[in-house]
Amino acid sequence: MPSGSHPDRGIYDGGVSIWPRRRRPRTSGAPTLSRAASTVTAKVELADLTPDPVSYLGQAAYLELALFEDVGRAIVAAPTTVAKSALSRVASPHLLAHEGLVAELRRRGADPAAAMEPYRRGIDDFQRRTAGQDWYEILVTCYVTAGFLTDFFLGLAAGLPRDLRDRVDELLDVEAGEEVLVAELRAAIDGNPRLASRLAMWGRRLVGDTMLVARSALGLGRASTAAAPPPEERIEPVFTELIAAHTRRMDALGLTA
Amino acid sequence: MPSGSHPDRGIYDGGVSIWPRRRRPRTSGAPTLSRAASTVTAKVELADLTPDPVSYLGQAAYLELALFEDVGRAIVAAPTTVAKSALSRVASPHLLAHEGLVAELRRRGADPAAAMEPYRRGIDDFQRRTAGQDWYEILVTCYVTAGFLTDFFLGLAAGLPRDLRDRVDELLDVEAGEEVLVAELRAAIDGNPRLASRLAMWGRRLVGDTMLVARSALGLGRASTAAAPPPEERIEPVFTELIAAHTRRMDALGLTA
Repeated sequence: MPSGSHPDRGIYDGGVSIWPRRRRPRTSGAPTLSRAASTVTAKVELADLTPDPVSYLGQAAYLELALFEDVGRAIVAAPTTVAKSALSRVASPHLLAHEGLVAELRRRGADPAAAMEPYRRGIDDFQRRTAGQDWYEILVTCYVTAGFLTDFFLGLAAGLPRDLRDRVDELLDVEAGEEVLVAELRAAIDGNPRLASRLAMWGRRLVGDTMLVARSALGLGRASTAAAPPPEERIEPVFTELIAAHTRRMDALGLTA
Repeated sequence: MPSGSHPDRGIYDGGVSIWPRRRRPRTSGAPTLSRAASTVTAKVELADLTPDPVSYLGQAAYLELALFEDVGRAIVAAPTTVAKSALSRVASPHLLAHEGLVAELRRRGADPAAAMEPYRRGIDDFQRRTAGQDWYEILVTCYVTAGFLTDFFLGLAAGLPRDLRDRVDELLDVEAGEEVLVAELRAAIDGNPRLASRLAMWGRRLVGDTMLVARSALGLGRASTAAAPPPEERIEPVFTELIAAHTRRMDALGLTA
């Protein structure tokens, strides 16, 4: 399919998405609906669920460290030198994001470790629950959890002060890594139906845990104004959009979400 | 002690060292001898033990990946958020060095994975033998093996073509990481004599394995000319110098080498 007619193009190239900077790996061409309308709604409703800047930065910084650790496990488990070396390109963006977010915390006079500490237990638990059992599962974890949570934190950045939002947009860039993961996984999955079905199941389990950790990151306290609908209703369209992006991510592996 | 009177200063700031770009963390002030004369000898004798550029780059690139993996284990094992986050500054230089060395291989038209492959087994074995049993031992491993092998590969770079040597000098920079490791280890060791003695012993064991992996990296074939002394004699002053640097490194932790 020529790139100009890519069915998802409008969502990522238009100015209305809450995730305008993410370019997806090509999907396998599964038909998708235009979701421009719901995306605008999601953007408006997500902004006032954004926690204060220090909380946002603290949990994003700790999360990037956890995502980095997952890639580190994949590097150790890599079956070939080619794969091991390629995965270094998946690891560096998470490390650089962590360091950049820590620098933003310092710039605001916050103690980075103190800002991260409240999120440690929840994210460590998430990490344990999503640790894959072998090389393939670890790769799917790196791909699915980082993809979903990067989307989510970029969306949540809508409620940050403008200058901080711009810097966060620059820092949360895991695209180069996604290409490596998709290439490794597709090579393994193509022509191996048993692996495909096992990894599809693993992907489904991951998305549940990933949604829970994302939900716990929302600053629900700030959203309780008299005029606004209850938080659950406002989160719904956001998660609908995130799950659609997850489905496209699984499509890119040739797997059913 | 004012920095101007640091006893090691002449060795690292003068133009005669084989390792002119490395600035050491401050030692505890143990007296050291001037080794300018033997250093000149070592430099001359090391240059023609340098393997060809692709072999050099392949093993240095794979080694940086292994050193990175060790730091990754330390990050996973870190007992506090402060330590976990600080260690990201130890990990990034190894990742960036790996990526830079791979880029140099590509620039020369070499297949990076094929260039690394011959060194995989030896370095993997080295990594298994030097894997620490707990957080403290892992940190000492990161500090001692990376310090020694960075010194060694910078020295070995003397025999590379000039432009490549300059780029390698830029890439093999683990100084920022050393400061983090020394700070973490000193905080643990000071006032804990049992830990100090256990880690001193671990450091001694590490240096043996590290010297073996360094020795295996030498391009001994090229050194066998009629006029030159046998390789063993020419390597000797180099290892004397590397062990002296190791001793200073252990001094900086307050440990006996």
